Amino acid sequence: MKIALVGANGKLGKAVCEILQANNQVFNIDIDGGDCHCIEETPTLPDVIVDVSCAQQSVCSAALANALGLPIVIGCTGHDSEQLEKIKYVSNSIPVFLAYNMSVGMQIFKNIAEYVCQNFDGDVHIHEIHHRYKKDAPSGTALELEKLLAGGHPTISYARGGNLVGTHEVDFFGENETITLTHTALSRKCFAEGIAKASAWIVNQPNGLYNMKNLIKNSEFSLK
Amino acid sequence: MKIALVGANGKLGKAVCEILQANNQVFNIDIDGGDCHCIEETPTLPDVIVDVSCAQQSVCSAALANALGLPIVIGCTGHDSEQLEKIKYVSNSIPVFLAYNMSVGMQIFKNIAEYVCQNFDGDVHIHEIHHRYKKDAPSGTALELEKLLAGGHPTISYARGGNLVGTHEVDFFGENETITLTHTALSRKCFAEGIAKASAWIVNQPNGLYNMKNLIKNSEFSLK
Amino acid sequence: MKIALVGANGKLGKAVCEILQANNQVFNIDIDGGDCHCIEETPTLPDVIVDVSCAQQSVCSAALANALGLPIVIGCTGHDSEQLEKIKYVSNSIPVFLAYNMSVGMQIFKNIAEYVCQNFDGDVHIHEIHHRYKKDAPSGTALELEKLLAGGHPTISYARGGNLVGTHEVDFFGENETITLTHTALSRKCFAEGIAKASAWIVNQPNGLYNMKNLIKNSEFSLK
Amino acid sequence: MKIALVGANGKLGKAVCEILQANNQVFNIDIDGGDCHCIEETPTLPDVIVDVSCAQQSVCSAALANALGLPIVIGCTGHDSEQLEKIKYVSNSIPVFLAYNMSVGMQIFKNIAEYVCQNFDGDVHIHEIHHRYKKDAPSGTALELEKLLAGGHPTISYARGGNLVGTHEVDFFGENETITLTHTALSRKCFAEGIAKASAWIVNQPNGLYNMKNLIKNSEFSLK
Repeated sequence: MKIALVGANGKLGKAVCEILQANNQVFNIDIDGGDCHCIEETPTLPDVIVDVSCAQQSVCSAALANALGLPIVIGCTGHDSEQLEKIKYVSNSIPVFLAYNMSVGMQIFKNIAEYVCQNFDGDVHIHEIHHRYKKDAPSGTALELEKLLAGGHPTISYARGGNLVGTHEVDFFGENETITLTHTALSRKCFAEGIAKASAWIVNQPNGLYNMKNLIKNSEFSLK
Repeated sequence: MKIALVGANGKLGKAVCEILQANNQVFNIDIDGGDCHCIEETPTLPDVIVDVSCAQQSVCSAALANALGLPIVIGCTGHDSEQLEKIKYVSNSIPVFLAYNMSVGMQIFKNIAEYVCQNFDGDVHIHEIHHRYKKDAPSGTALELEKLLAGGHPTISYARGGNLVGTHEVDFFGENETITLTHTALSRKCFAEGIAKASAWIVNQPNGLYNMKNLIKNSEFSLK
Repeated sequence: MKIALVGANGKLGKAVCEILQANNQVFNIDIDGGDCHCIEETPTLPDVIVDVSCAQQSVCSAALANALGLPIVIGCTGHDSEQLEKIKYVSNSIPVFLAYNMSVGMQIFKNIAEYVCQNFDGDVHIHEIHHRYKKDAPSGTALELEKLLAGGHPTISYARGGNLVGTHEVDFFGENETITLTHTALSRKCFAEGIAKASAWIVNQPNGLYNMKNLIKNSEFSLK
Repeated sequence: MKIALVGANGKLGKAVCEILQANNQVFNIDIDGGDCHCIEETPTLPDVIVDVSCAQQSVCSAALANALGLPIVIGCTGHDSEQLEKIKYVSNSIPVFLAYNMSVGMQIFKNIAEYVCQNFDGDVHIHEIHHRYKKDAPSGTALELEKLLAGGHPTISYARGGNLVGTHEVDFFGENETITLTHTALSRKCFAEGIAKASAWIVNQPNGLYNMKNLIKNSEFSLK
């Protein structure tokens, strides 16, 4: 597959580039100067655009994808409501994959957390741990979990330290028994792997807006 | 509800009796002498029979439940294939609930373990911990998990020590990320709670053989 | 050994009474009416007084122990500075054992946490979990840990839920490696066991004020 | 400091080289051809030799260190008794640092595990987890822990999976309370860091054979 990659110079971008190159032809798109017209200058038209740069740039990439009739995977975060509106609009005409935590394992983790929350009678707590350089707390993923498990009125706590990548834990404290779910990212590569999977998947989807839940949902197994 | 309880004198039996009495009228059935005809001598016919005694006795209780046209919950373990055959036969005529780990949380735990196993690409390991007096190892529940997760070719390990009740952990070791599921029984009461739930549920079911999975399955939420 | 037990009716008191009775003759001291003169009415003079009632009562018990020349173990919490002053004063004349978390395991846990903090270069975090009915947060023990590990500038978090007894975890997040210490109380009996050990130990000590650290410190092994 | 590094091409060697270069002048010693005479060809005499190649080569490096009167740090494993004998002999004339798990955190972990084992009354279990490519099981470190905690008659278990670096857990299961110690290596760099610390430390030691325990032991704090 031929992939145009926007934002390959960031921490995540480098990991994404390495993973994508294993099975694809990757064109790195230079975004110095703030425009991405150079996508049009790739040797041949790519099959999909992957943007891991930043919110503002990704809207621009989405517009270009639309103009070219190409699917796009957006793996950066921090879009405001206006930017999200633009991305949604574009998804009427092309397949758009938008996800904030691109790890396949994290989506599975969210699915089972939601299932336990709805079926197990207990108090819910979310605890997350990240490296000392992470500035926002709680993490965006912890906040997504909080929303997802809102029915269980979760409390939330966090720790920062060392250089570990990131761990999310959800505790369900019942009467006389507890269930604890833990997801540990060992390397940023797990996010890159998710982006690679999303890229391979999105090229076969009809127009629309997709996220990791859609990718997992379409898998064969479901909890009956 | 009126419940005839067989085997109230054991460790689990005492916990079950305490939990059931909170919301039900419980007739303790004396099984000294090895027969349970005295169920017929309860002041009024019970709504359900609960047997937490032993494999052999439970078959006798099932036969009596059949004769009386009553649903039965069997919460003891160790049935051989002949005994299981007899229980299955009886379930053609009455609702029979048979489960080896009566904790609701454990069934939910099994469901999510199966879901992760089928959707997450990783190596699977089961680790269980029980008090030093538990003789069989791995635990029956660990062996059930091993069968359930057979597709992931799980390895299995265990520890024995102290007087904790019991913990089961399933690890999914992926590339660059891991998911760990942990279930901890804090007290035998969690099994007793499951038996109480099963008792309330079985009285409204058609004839047939049921287990915890059926009880949970019929809950509203399923992982789509 | 003969033990006068003050406060045997509380949650902890009942557990303490059960444990102490296994190896000792225990006189339960009635404290209805707010005075404990009835200690003087025990059939024979006890070897030690154990008070697990409340801060105010324990000061009264300490005064009586002083008058009778008996050692005392104080296992209740919440003393203000004036009450502490009185207890310290009494310890000039009799052996006084005062500890807030009477579990032997917790003292060992504190010792190793302090050792790791002083020898391992990492960020320190304390996380504690208690049952949903515990009102104060963070727990007194977590606050003691915070003080003990002050050199590591620990952060602190907590969760409340279910009916588990209590867990304390200390994380040391280093560069490229982490050390995590976890102490789990499975039952209030672990506090009662500590009180029983302190009772047997205090009767052989000279006058002075002691705590769990002293009891453990005198053990044979020390970390060289 | 000037360091001659033998074995810089291996997985660990690369990590060691990167860490050492941050604060030192590193001469990589080519060992193709199986001899290390080229150490004598370094531009200036190094302050210390670090060997992370293999058991056989490290004996040769030790002999050369001896001939040159230089301290040596040996960070490779698998020495047979004859090789160990040669290393010990050389340590009569020069300072030799020999350790199988060079992580500082692991040595601290061993120290506290030994302390808990000697002071806490409980059943002891060692569980270790490593990536799927690790061939030996249990790990060498788990076996060292087993020997260290022999007084507690530890049981041992392990899991293999994914690409995590390595985790060691020691459980102390007591009556009514448990203590669990966990060490997680996030990256091979933690071993490299230990080698860097050992290198800086060994140059100031008298002749003799040292390991990580000696390095930590001399720290200011000890568990009184």
